[in-house]
Amino acid sequence: MTITYEQPLHERVRLFMRLEMLMARFDHALKHEAPPDTHSSLLTLIEMVNLTNRVDVKRELIKELERQIVNLGRLGSEPGVDQQRLNSVIHHHRQLIDTIHALGGQMDRQVKGNDFFNSIRQRTAIPGGTCDFDLPAYHYWLARPTGERRQLLQVWAQPFTEIQESVSVILQLIRNAGANRTVIAPRGFHEQTLDTTQPWQMLRIILPMNAPCYPEISAGKQRFSVRFLRAGDMTSRPAQCDGEIQFTLSCCAL
Amino acid sequence: MTITYEQPLHERVRLFMRLEMLMARFDHALKHEAPPDTHSSLLTLIEMVNLTNRVDVKRELIKELERQIVNLGRLGSEPGVDQQRLNSVIHHHRQLIDTIHALGGQMDRQVKGNDFFNSIRQRTAIPGGTCDFDLPAYHYWLARPTGERRQLLQVWAQPFTEIQESVSVILQLIRNAGANRTVIAPRGFHEQTLDTTQPWQMLRIILPMNAPCYPEISAGKQRFSVRFLRAGDMTSRPAQCDGEIQFTLSCCAL
Repeated sequence: MTITYEQPLHERVRLFMRLEMLMARFDHALKHEAPPDTHSSLLTLIEMVNLTNRVDVKRELIKELERQIVNLGRLGSEPGVDQQRLNSVIHHHRQLIDTIHALGGQMDRQVKGNDFFNSIRQRTAIPGGTCDFDLPAYHYWLARPTGERRQLLQVWAQPFTEIQESVSVILQLIRNAGANRTVIAPRGFHEQTLDTTQPWQMLRIILPMNAPCYPEISAGKQRFSVRFLRAGDMTSRPAQCDGEIQFTLSCCAL
Repeated sequence: MTITYEQPLHERVRLFMRLEMLMARFDHALKHEAPPDTHSSLLTLIEMVNLTNRVDVKRELIKELERQIVNLGRLGSEPGVDQQRLNSVIHHHRQLIDTIHALGGQMDRQVKGNDFFNSIRQRTAIPGGTCDFDLPAYHYWLARPTGERRQLLQVWAQPFTEIQESVSVILQLIRNAGANRTVIAPRGFHEQTLDTTQPWQMLRIILPMNAPCYPEISAGKQRFSVRFLRAGDMTSRPAQCDGEIQFTLSCCAL
């Protein structure tokens, strides 16, 4: 059992990882049936809408898919590459680009003019502001059968569902574009330079699940450093580990 | 199967109802085991801390318990009142006041100086801001066994747990301090004056679960009105019901 800490090295990857995380939270809460779980799903959906309000997510996805196609194409000339596998990935990327081009409207198109959604969204800004008496329509709706609530949430989340595969494919390819190697951090610290000719996208640090520490990663364009902190009982300030920490590192460039 | 819509008629009751709702959400999410559920619990706890940041909740509870003791004492002189039951309620209220007096510190005393809690709290203000890479300590903690996560949340929520019984007893007494009567709202509208010599705390409107409408209550010191709105499919603006609506009304004064 291991735990993986990932550090995005690019603003775009950062955005996709936020979306991936929020969509996972949304899907998880949607599986539960009770009204408070529906409320959790909705809170996460509101976060998704707020996150993508000022970003053209579809353009970012297309740009990234196109960038990956170019870089994958270059790989094709290297020896020992499975040409058939590579072509199939590039073909899938092209299909995803076509799909995104075909999608109309912004990420909030399903909720934008919806009074009900917006009344809840406004009230979530106030602590405890989504009480039954604040939003009787919400109280009514939360008492509806689970299937009905789930269906409306799915309609609202539809633009996010439509891009979910692209986000997932992009991040998966980036995660696979690095090789695991074992590294030892003396006194809980590791520093390393990055070859700036490579298109670095993500750092991945893998530790055993029972490791009593977690990494804090600080990364720039030319180098990165990792400090391992003792977790303790989460109630006092964490201290840097003073012993040797062995971990698995993967620097992903694509 | 019925659904009840409650309208607080007093700022203090409003606060207690918000707390009651948030504590119910917190307890619910805490029963689930997965990391996203822990995140939901924590979001709710942060809302509870934010709600009570600028209010002296314990003083409000004591004031309300004392107010109820005085008003219950007056009831004692009326004919047909179960004196023994009344004395036992007043005795319990006095015990609750003593308990609250004995509690030290503010509602956020368990989390106030905690870096870990505050780092998460700060990041929740940013859409998608609680990703693994934003908060590696949180990523570490969310991967800990369920029992460990639950325990820390319970420690953090302890001040709220300590006042939970008082909130619940106060609201239960208010809810019981009204008599149900059947009312007909012609063209989906009902208006009524309130006897201003009575200490009104809450209005309760009870509808069958399958009623296709919900009430919007507007209440002042001297009168209140109820408009019933057709719920529809929650995607278009709701319209006032034009038919007769039969509902159960309870005006609670204590």
